[in-house]
Amino acid sequence: MRVAVVGTGLVGGSLAAALRRLDDVAEVVGADRDEGAVATALARGLIDRAAPGAAEAAEGADLVVLAVPVSAVEAAAKEVGSVLAPGAVLTDVASVKARLVPAMEAAVAPGVSVIGGHPMAGSHEGGAAHATPDLFVGATYLLMPTASTDPDAYRRLHGLVSRVGARVLAVDPARHDLLVAVTSHLPQLAATTLMNLAADRAREQDAELLLLAAGGFRDATRVAASNPDLWLDICAENRQAIVAVLDDYRERIGSLRSLLSVGDDVGLRRELADARAARRALPGKESVTGVLVELHLPIPDRPGVIAEVATGVGSVAVNIEDIAVEHDPEGGRGTLRLAIVGEEQAARARAALESRGYDVLEHRP
Amino acid sequence: MRVAVVGTGLVGGSLAAALRRLDDVAEVVGADRDEGAVATALARGLIDRAAPGAAEAAEGADLVVLAVPVSAVEAAAKEVGSVLAPGAVLTDVASVKARLVPAMEAAVAPGVSVIGGHPMAGSHEGGAAHATPDLFVGATYLLMPTASTDPDAYRRLHGLVSRVGARVLAVDPARHDLLVAVTSHLPQLAATTLMNLAADRAREQDAELLLLAAGGFRDATRVAASNPDLWLDICAENRQAIVAVLDDYRERIGSLRSLLSVGDDVGLRRELADARAARRALPGKESVTGVLVELHLPIPDRPGVIAEVATGVGSVAVNIEDIAVEHDPEGGRGTLRLAIVGEEQAARARAALESRGYDVLEHRP
Repeated sequence: MRVAVVGTGLVGGSLAAALRRLDDVAEVVGADRDEGAVATALARGLIDRAAPGAAEAAEGADLVVLAVPVSAVEAAAKEVGSVLAPGAVLTDVASVKARLVPAMEAAVAPGVSVIGGHPMAGSHEGGAAHATPDLFVGATYLLMPTASTDPDAYRRLHGLVSRVGARVLAVDPARHDLLVAVTSHLPQLAATTLMNLAADRAREQDAELLLLAAGGFRDATRVAASNPDLWLDICAENRQAIVAVLDDYRERIGSLRSLLSVGDDVGLRRELADARAARRALPGKESVTGVLVELHLPIPDRPGVIAEVATGVGSVAVNIEDIAVEHDPEGGRGTLRLAIVGEEQAARARAALESRGYDVLEHRP
Repeated sequence: MRVAVVGTGLVGGSLAAALRRLDDVAEVVGADRDEGAVATALARGLIDRAAPGAAEAAEGADLVVLAVPVSAVEAAAKEVGSVLAPGAVLTDVASVKARLVPAMEAAVAPGVSVIGGHPMAGSHEGGAAHATPDLFVGATYLLMPTASTDPDAYRRLHGLVSRVGARVLAVDPARHDLLVAVTSHLPQLAATTLMNLAADRAREQDAELLLLAAGGFRDATRVAASNPDLWLDICAENRQAIVAVLDDYRERIGSLRSLLSVGDDVGLRRELADARAARRALPGKESVTGVLVELHLPIPDRPGVIAEVATGVGSVAVNIEDIAVEHDPEGGRGTLRLAIVGEEQAARARAALESRGYDVLEHRP
C-alpha cells in the first residue's frame, strides 16, 4: 500500500510515522507547502520520501491523508482529486467537517472513497519537530463514512487507524461538528476568555495577579496558547454550532452565579459534586478490556449501508474494534462482521443496529 | 524552633515535611481530626510526632500552621490561641482571607503575630499520602502581614517560606480574596460548568460525546474533580468577589459570542492572539535570575510598617528574596533590608516604596 500525507505538521507527521511502521505500507510520501516542515519530516524519518506538491505525492497512492489546516482542505482535495484513481481512499484530519466532507467528495472522481477523519489527539506544541508515531495510542479517532462510502474502503481505513493504536468511532459529519463544538471549541474559547480576563486585570489594576497563577489556572488556560489562525478558521467553519454552545455555557455560568449570589448551597454543592463525578468518570486512554464479541449482520448492497451501521454503533458510544466484509458470490448482498470489546458494549451496539432494522447475530470467537 | 502543623493533609503534610528538613527546626508536631491523616503523616516521616489535638500540638510552639479547610480555620485558631505564648507566630494556608485573618487575630493573645499564608501550590489529589516536601519549590507563597504584625515575626516566617523553595509575595488579605477569585475560584467554577454542560449533553442526547474528550477538554476540566465540600466553603467565604468575577467572565463570553456571530474576524483574532501571548508570558516555576539588589530603608517603629512595605513591594509583582531587620539601639526606629533579584524588579520595588514616602538606598552586595 502506498500512502501520501499532505501536510507534515504534528498530526500529519505523526500519522505518517505511525503508518510507516506497518508491514503492508510500502511507502509513505510527504508533501507540505512549508519546505522546512517536509524537510524536518524527512530528516526525522517520519516519511520515506518528500514530494514537491500535493498532486505529486498523491500520484499512485492508495490512501491520501490531508493533514492541512481547515481552510486549506478544499484546495488540497482539488489538487489530489485530479490524480486519484478509482479504489483510492481520501481522508483528512480537519477539526470541522459538515461542509468539508461533501466538498472533498465533489473534488474526486467516481470510485474514490472519501472518509472524513479526525483524531482526538494533538498537542499545543505543533510542528513536525514534535510529531511522534505514538500520538494516537489510546486516542479516539473519528471516521466519517458517507452515503457513498464503499464498505471495503471503510474497512481498510478502519484497519489502519486501529493499527496505529487508536479507537475508531464513526460519526456523521454534521453531527461531528456539534460534538466538537462542546469538547474542543468551547474549551478553547473558554480558556481564551479566562486568560484575557486575568491578563487585562493584571495590566489594568492588579500587577501581581499572574504571580498567583498555580496549577488550576495553568491547566484551565493551557489551550489558550494555541495558534490563533487555525482557530479563526475553525470558528468560521463551525460558527453556528459554537455560537449555540457558547449561549448554553453563558447561561450555565449565569445559573451558577445565581446559586452563589442567593446562597443556595444545596444547588451549588450539587453542581460541584456532579462535575466531580463526571470528571472522574471521563473515559481514559487505558485500553478497554472485556471479551471480544462479533456481531454478524447481513447487509444489502446499497449505498450508505456502511455509514449507517458504523455511525449507528458510534451513536451509542461504542468503538468498533475490527470490521470484515464478506461479499456474497451471487452479488447483491453480503455480511458485515463487527468485532466489539465487552458484553455490555456489544449489547448496546446490537440494540442500536436492530432499531435500524438490521438482523444481528452474536458470535464469540 | 518548634513548629506545629494542624491539619496534615496535602498542604499541611508537605509543609511539615519541608520545614522538618531545615536545620533550625528542632521538631514538627502534627495534629489532625482525621486520625488516619496524622498516622499517615507520621508513617511517611512528614512529622516528628503526632499530638492528640490542635492545642496539644501548639503547646510551646514558636510557629503554628493551620492547614485545615476554610470553614475550620476560625475554630482551630481559637483552640491554639489559648496556648500560644507571646512571640509565637500563627499562620494558615486557607484559600480565602479577608474575614479569617482578623478572626485569627481576635483568637490570640497580645504579642502573638498572626500572618495569613496561602501557598499557590497544590494538587487535585489531596491527602497526606500525596504530600511532598518539594510541593512549594518555585511556587508563589502569599503572606499577609497586618497592621499589628511584628517585623521580626514577619522576617522569621518569610525566611522559612523562602527556605522551603517558595517565592514570597506579600498581599493585603482583602486584596488577596479579589485576586484568587480570578486566578483560582473562577477557573474552578468555569471547569465545573464546562464539565456539567458536556456530561448533561452526553446523558441527554449525545451518548458518544465524552469519547471525544481529548487533551484540551481534559486540561480545561481537570480541577472539576476537586472536593465539592472544600469549594462550597470557599464559595461561601468569598461570595461577593466570585459573583463579580463571574459577571465579568459571563460578559466576556457574551462579547466573544458576538464577535463570532457577526463574523468579526479581526476582533476574534485579536482575542485569540492576546490570550496566546498572555498564556505564553505566564510566569513559570523556573527560578528568577539576575543580580541581587539590596534596598535599605529606615523605618519608624510604628505598627503596620512591615505590612505597608511588604505589600507595597508585592503590589508591583515583586518577590522579596530575603528580609533583615536592624533595630536602632536607641529604640524608636530601625532599618529594613530587602533583598530583591533583578535590577528591573528592584527599581519597581523602590519606586513603589518611595511613592509611599520611604527613603530607599540601593546596595549591591
